[in-house]
Amino acid sequence: MSLDRQQRLWTTTCHQQFSTIFSLLRLKNLTGQKKLFQLYQVPLYRPIKMASTSFHDPEVVKFLDKAFEIIKEESLQKGTDNKYPVVDFQQPKDLESLLDTEISSEPATHDQLLDALKKIIQYSVKTGHPHFMNQLYGGLDPYSQVGAWVTPTLNTNLHTYEVAPAFVILERYIYKKMLALVGFEHGEGLFCPGGTASNIFALHLARFNKFPDVRKNGIYGMKPLRMYTSDMAHYSLKKGALYLGLGTDNVVTINTDDRGHMITSELERCIKEDLEKGFVPMYVNATSGSTVLGSFDDLTAISEVCKTYNLWLHSDACWGGGTLLSRKHRHLMKGSHLCNSIAWNFHKFSGTPIQSSAFLLNDPSGNLMEEANSTKAEYLFQPDKYYDASYDIGDKTVQCGRSVDIVKLWMQWRGLGDSGMEAKIDLAYDKAHYLTEKLKITEGFKMVLPEFECTNISFWYIPKRLRGKVEDDGWWQEVNDVAPKLKERMMKAGTLMIQYQALSTKGYANFFRVVIVNQHVNYSDMDFVIEEFERLGHDL
Amino acid sequence: MSLDRQQRLWTTTCHQQFSTIFSLLRLKNLTGQKKLFQLYQVPLYRPIKMASTSFHDPEVVKFLDKAFEIIKEESLQKGTDNKYPVVDFQQPKDLESLLDTEISSEPATHDQLLDALKKIIQYSVKTGHPHFMNQLYGGLDPYSQVGAWVTPTLNTNLHTYEVAPAFVILERYIYKKMLALVGFEHGEGLFCPGGTASNIFALHLARFNKFPDVRKNGIYGMKPLRMYTSDMAHYSLKKGALYLGLGTDNVVTINTDDRGHMITSELERCIKEDLEKGFVPMYVNATSGSTVLGSFDDLTAISEVCKTYNLWLHSDACWGGGTLLSRKHRHLMKGSHLCNSIAWNFHKFSGTPIQSSAFLLNDPSGNLMEEANSTKAEYLFQPDKYYDASYDIGDKTVQCGRSVDIVKLWMQWRGLGDSGMEAKIDLAYDKAHYLTEKLKITEGFKMVLPEFECTNISFWYIPKRLRGKVEDDGWWQEVNDVAPKLKERMMKAGTLMIQYQALSTKGYANFFRVVIVNQHVNYSDMDFVIEEFERLGHDL
Repeated sequence: MSLDRQQRLWTTTCHQQFSTIFSLLRLKNLTGQKKLFQLYQVPLYRPIKMASTSFHDPEVVKFLDKAFEIIKEESLQKGTDNKYPVVDFQQPKDLESLLDTEISSEPATHDQLLDALKKIIQYSVKTGHPHFMNQLYGGLDPYSQVGAWVTPTLNTNLHTYEVAPAFVILERYIYKKMLALVGFEHGEGLFCPGGTASNIFALHLARFNKFPDVRKNGIYGMKPLRMYTSDMAHYSLKKGALYLGLGTDNVVTINTDDRGHMITSELERCIKEDLEKGFVPMYVNATSGSTVLGSFDDLTAISEVCKTYNLWLHSDACWGGGTLLSRKHRHLMKGSHLCNSIAWNFHKFSGTPIQSSAFLLNDPSGNLMEEANSTKAEYLFQPDKYYDASYDIGDKTVQCGRSVDIVKLWMQWRGLGDSGMEAKIDLAYDKAHYLTEKLKITEGFKMVLPEFECTNISFWYIPKRLRGKVEDDGWWQEVNDVAPKLKERMMKAGTLMIQYQALSTKGYANFFRVVIVNQHVNYSDMDFVIEEFERLGHDL
Repeated sequence: MSLDRQQRLWTTTCHQQFSTIFSLLRLKNLTGQKKLFQLYQVPLYRPIKMASTSFHDPEVVKFLDKAFEIIKEESLQKGTDNKYPVVDFQQPKDLESLLDTEISSEPATHDQLLDALKKIIQYSVKTGHPHFMNQLYGGLDPYSQVGAWVTPTLNTNLHTYEVAPAFVILERYIYKKMLALVGFEHGEGLFCPGGTASNIFALHLARFNKFPDVRKNGIYGMKPLRMYTSDMAHYSLKKGALYLGLGTDNVVTINTDDRGHMITSELERCIKEDLEKGFVPMYVNATSGSTVLGSFDDLTAISEVCKTYNLWLHSDACWGGGTLLSRKHRHLMKGSHLCNSIAWNFHKFSGTPIQSSAFLLNDPSGNLMEEANSTKAEYLFQPDKYYDASYDIGDKTVQCGRSVDIVKLWMQWRGLGDSGMEAKIDLAYDKAHYLTEKLKITEGFKMVLPEFECTNISFWYIPKRLRGKVEDDGWWQEVNDVAPKLKERMMKAGTLMIQYQALSTKGYANFFRVVIVNQHVNYSDMDFVIEEFERLGHDL
């Protein structure tokens, strides 16, 4: 530690001590009891050494300024620049020593902290980089970043208007916009900690809506409640079933057609079968933009079945919900207004920083969330408040504190405008279309589907030695084994990040899936993807 | 919109278009099919107008710099300065118009956005202000702030090592430190979205641990599982019971002694009674630092009962867990190593930005979380990875994506050192002690308990006209009515934020609860609290 830093620490300490002595003297004067002063002198007047944490300390201000410059240059600028790698991959054991994680008893110096900050950035994946197309998120914009930075400085949570007035107002405004896009007439909104949390919350509300006594009594002694979802759906319904005590065996998987859409007649057949067996059909999860193939289930057709059998219809639009922002592509969500609930992650298609998971509820009763969840804690939700307590939304959730996710989305939306939010979606589609067409006509690539409904584009890469050969089981096994090897080369080169996976329900061997969400991805990046696959993989 | 801005927008658009044409020409050359080019010219070559989002654009850089200055000066500096108010309170309807929330079709200008940022800060509660003592959180430090700012720039989630290598390593390191403090020999850690989420997750694991078939089959047909918690405990166990399908009626409330501790003999009596009734006792929630009175249940004594009846012992140490960082105060958590699980929120006592909720599990089997939760999604958890897949932790949770909460805590801990993390706790206790003693000897204040185990200090404020009167029911009713009125005056003055609540299980009328966590609270602020109550409330 530098002497300067040491001195600064002790200055803070001394200040603390003087304040203590001063206060004690005041306490003594007030009481006139010398004894009390003596009593407190011992526990309070001891040396407490602490790094300065005052935002008025010039050294701290210097530290903040330098940290901001590092974040701006190393993470935002280099991290979105093609000239730099998307990842500096290290094996876990190596990274443990490279990162210099060790925390000691003494404070680190500001220089050590700034150095650690640089290392964290260096060894993190640059998800805003144009060559990160690995996950259903990616891309950064300045407006949502500023929203994300201001949030921890106003460090609060969203359970009451009292502690989060501005955030409550911003949330209500954004919910209204979302609900209008979805078409819910009696809508309510809530940000959840991730898409899976939204999907589980929907399941919980559906159960309470049908069987309100569950809240008090649990589900003991009931007939098994059945849930339906397609074989292309996200695993979160299974997580919901195991979490809410409903059992994964009660999740019925519905077959999909060759483009990955739930077959509605199959859904109806399974419901009827369950009714005959004495089960209680309760819930249908429609997928709007499936994780792997990007398919959109037909909400209108499914809602007809749900109406007939009185089932809750939830749309998992975590990925595909973004299409609602685009006049050109929102037809994919046709029938959204017929759902009971929708989960829509803005951190996916819109690139808002993680997490930005909206849960939207169509609730004519207006108090389902409240009735299902409220516990009326005396210490938070006082009946005798000095403002309209309907702005206190904390009791509508299963959480207590809830993190403030709204500012980044509101700043982004205001910064880009409706037209910019729309353009992000349209541009992603245009580029995905270009990539699809180019892959189709390039040797060594084989498409998983002839067209994709979303901007995740799936294909097999065929190295030179396997091209033009008979596509028998042995051939497919070899194609399957190419993906992990090529992925490893890609990561070690650090030039490109693209996910691969098998799809066993369709019998597909490992294939690659390029995801396009980042507005900084250009057409030339698409060309680069194809060239880089060939450069890294041709000899595999 | 300024002309400059307009031009910039169109420049971006044009760049986009040239890139498009260029790529299309390349596509044409590659295929030699003129038709393809024409086909794509129409959908791609259309004017898409979008605000610049490039971090290399000098205008954007200027915007970021200005935004950072505003955040630093308005939120961090003024927001922690006694010279400025802790809140500029506005009624919801007024705030709706003051905030200028409206989003239009067109992008906002940078000036409009910066102005909006200022307004968000102005009308938000300054939880880092020394006079915010309203919730079990508060206080800001520069180190955790920098950790919070860098996180969204590296925007990712924590399901796999592949996309979050540095964050996985930092988490593992911090878990080890926490587990050592708690004393779990076979420990695992996980950050959850809030303390309630941690508490519900614990309940889920306890159920799976005892009845692994629940995962597949649900809890239909089982005898009701019983959960025990004190009448001082947080409501999250009830939320867990209603969420996991267990029913709130199966949460048994155990009486507390006059200091708010669960009476262990009462716990045992209730368990025996339940066994006789044919229920299945499963889970005890011990509270380590209760929300209102700050009491710590006796973990050692409760663990004896749990051992006898084979029950899961969970410690809700969301609030009181911070004492583990202090050699002086950790005796309050004595017996923590005997628990099966612990929830510990660093955003409470340690002032890490929200959310920083650690869940700690004592699991000799080493795979309880995995067995309870994994769904082995093919698209994320490939068996053929190029690194040690045990670093992929996503499948151990009920979430899919999980927000990166680690950097802010790691930076804070490294920035302050173990000694600084300890000092924060010790200083808070010293100040709470001072306030308690001073309140005891000041006219107009009546303590709810003679001593407090944590740094939330509860008292009734007695305005002048009620002092020295007989404390009958009518008198208590009047004291009860003082709190909301005084609170309203406080909020409108904007000088102080302190929570009030009743405690009906103990028959207590509305009382105030000062919470001390912020390291920037000085002894003079404590004096101010007392003076301000008297100034605002003496005539009530």
